[in-house]
Amino acid sequence: MTRPAVGLAVHTPGGPVRPWSFERRDLRPHDVAVAITHCGVCHSDVEAIHGVRAPDLPLVPGHEFVGRVSAAGGSVTRFRVGDAVAVGNSVDSCGACEECLAGYENHCSGGGPTRTYWGVDRHDGRRTQGGWSTEYVASETWVHHLPDVLDPAAAAPLMCAGITTWEALRHWAVGPGTTVGVVGIGGLGHLGVKFAKALGAEVVAFTLAPERVADIKALGADDVVVSADPDALAAQARRFDFVLDTASGPHDLAPYLRSLRLHGTLCLLGITPVVEIETRALRVGRHSLSGSGTGSPARVQEMLAFCAEHGIVADVDVLPSAQVATALDRLERGDVSYRIVLDLADLADLATVTA
Amino acid sequence: MTRPAVGLAVHTPGGPVRPWSFERRDLRPHDVAVAITHCGVCHSDVEAIHGVRAPDLPLVPGHEFVGRVSAAGGSVTRFRVGDAVAVGNSVDSCGACEECLAGYENHCSGGGPTRTYWGVDRHDGRRTQGGWSTEYVASETWVHHLPDVLDPAAAAPLMCAGITTWEALRHWAVGPGTTVGVVGIGGLGHLGVKFAKALGAEVVAFTLAPERVADIKALGADDVVVSADPDALAAQARRFDFVLDTASGPHDLAPYLRSLRLHGTLCLLGITPVVEIETRALRVGRHSLSGSGTGSPARVQEMLAFCAEHGIVADVDVLPSAQVATALDRLERGDVSYRIVLDLADLADLATVTA
Repeated sequence: MTRPAVGLAVHTPGGPVRPWSFERRDLRPHDVAVAITHCGVCHSDVEAIHGVRAPDLPLVPGHEFVGRVSAAGGSVTRFRVGDAVAVGNSVDSCGACEECLAGYENHCSGGGPTRTYWGVDRHDGRRTQGGWSTEYVASETWVHHLPDVLDPAAAAPLMCAGITTWEALRHWAVGPGTTVGVVGIGGLGHLGVKFAKALGAEVVAFTLAPERVADIKALGADDVVVSADPDALAAQARRFDFVLDTASGPHDLAPYLRSLRLHGTLCLLGITPVVEIETRALRVGRHSLSGSGTGSPARVQEMLAFCAEHGIVADVDVLPSAQVATALDRLERGDVSYRIVLDLADLADLATVTA
Repeated sequence: MTRPAVGLAVHTPGGPVRPWSFERRDLRPHDVAVAITHCGVCHSDVEAIHGVRAPDLPLVPGHEFVGRVSAAGGSVTRFRVGDAVAVGNSVDSCGACEECLAGYENHCSGGGPTRTYWGVDRHDGRRTQGGWSTEYVASETWVHHLPDVLDPAAAAPLMCAGITTWEALRHWAVGPGTTVGVVGIGGLGHLGVKFAKALGAEVVAFTLAPERVADIKALGADDVVVSADPDALAAQARRFDFVLDTASGPHDLAPYLRSLRLHGTLCLLGITPVVEIETRALRVGRHSLSGSGTGSPARVQEMLAFCAEHGIVADVDVLPSAQVATALDRLERGDVSYRIVLDLADLADLATVTA
């Protein structure tokens, strides 16, 4: 028994994304099925579309989505059909390693968290397919209640862009009395600014785009530094307790390390594979360079509660499924302020027309 | 008024080190003069000898030394003539910046700590000259009581090699229940092993030299990994809470980052100027890369008390001043197990003979 689904899939590396009919697994006792309404488009989706190879094709991207529970397994206790829910970029972990047992399932050392797509299900060995689809099936542990006060389309990016920044800000205890720098004000960065401000920190945003300073202040930044200006960067020396670097392109980290106060940390969220570090910029002021990724299920639920309390969602451009090519093209050209979200209401019909 | 001194000085970049008569400042009210008996030979001395340029020549190296107080300024309260004392690689700080006021004089942001040699005195603007000399003059704040139970020659390296490892181990709270890796078992590393063990940690040493495994275990290491063996390195994955990397040559940091447990830190003490980092090795397990240097005066005194309590000194080869060229040659060739210390008793006579 399986569940029919329609996804937006890539069939050849880098190739176009087209509607594709496929099968989801039938519900296990702790599974819920989610009828997806909206899913974000992330830089890593673009990388997956270009990077995926056989036998992992066709591939359905998408790992930050929201919807309603459409079915629940017999042992599910936390959800009922119709509940508003959200799913992020991980959908399972081993549950038995030291990290899982300590509540750091996001750092599972028993094979790593199962990725929402382009991963392998730990139980049936099938490849996972993502949220650019009509329905998803996941263990209830990795499905989260979406507060009703949050707009679903704007909440979808909380599940990747949001949790990635929230996890780091919380781990490094950002709050009243701390001064935080956020580097790169895109999908992740704009949520980093909103979160840090709402947590009570003084927030300084770094952007390459002087024309966006006013918009970024409107997000809540107390100050905006144009990072193309070396003097402006140098003037930040020893200012920050914590710097959250969300910039995905290569950039010199030394000015940001030097912008840290004694014992401050620069945390990389962007996915530049290799960086060069001046060791002096670590030693002087005993700065740390770290990295962080997604959060645990408990941390996600904590974030969603905070978002509901503070009215925080992403700033999104919503496009219908039919315009996924436009969405990808805009993302690759950098023509998106913060985040594009696909409205998947048209997806089932789209598949019929295409088929 | 000045105080005559004899030093072992380099007169041309990379040139030979020869006895040289020069003048120390006369005592300020809070200064003590130290008649030096022993001073260590550090890798950074070799770098200074090769790197120094006019107008900083002649230059007297040496920044880890011990001796007896030979004179004290009128306002000195902590020392009397004849006291056994030790001085390290910093001799002053601004005293007014946030870091100094917080007891982190070693991270002084008001111009940085004044270096024991190849620095500039903050009060008279004169270049500082180091401890390969008959006498040193320093503010009592940066002079430390040397416990009588410690052999002076073997205690000298505590003041640079020792405090650099102690500072890091203490900052990262190494103690019972923590597992620590020490990379590179030379001057710094062998003291790192002794300290970490005496602090109660489980200690694993990483060495390039399989023939030294037994010697390194004798220092107190619970386990020794030959780091030239990629399989042995890979087998250390997720083992350490903290890794202290004292290796001075370029080496791949990725295996050491991967050897960290969740939230573990790799601290670089070696002086490789630039390192490459795989960001994935930071992100997975949320590891941190940091650096550290010398300690504050309070931390030095804490270390000396710990050394006295636990009978910890460096393993040293002691050579007379007359053999300084041999000492430097051996250090450059790597022909020294842990640390070479100069016995300066012959220095005044040597100067007379040479002059």
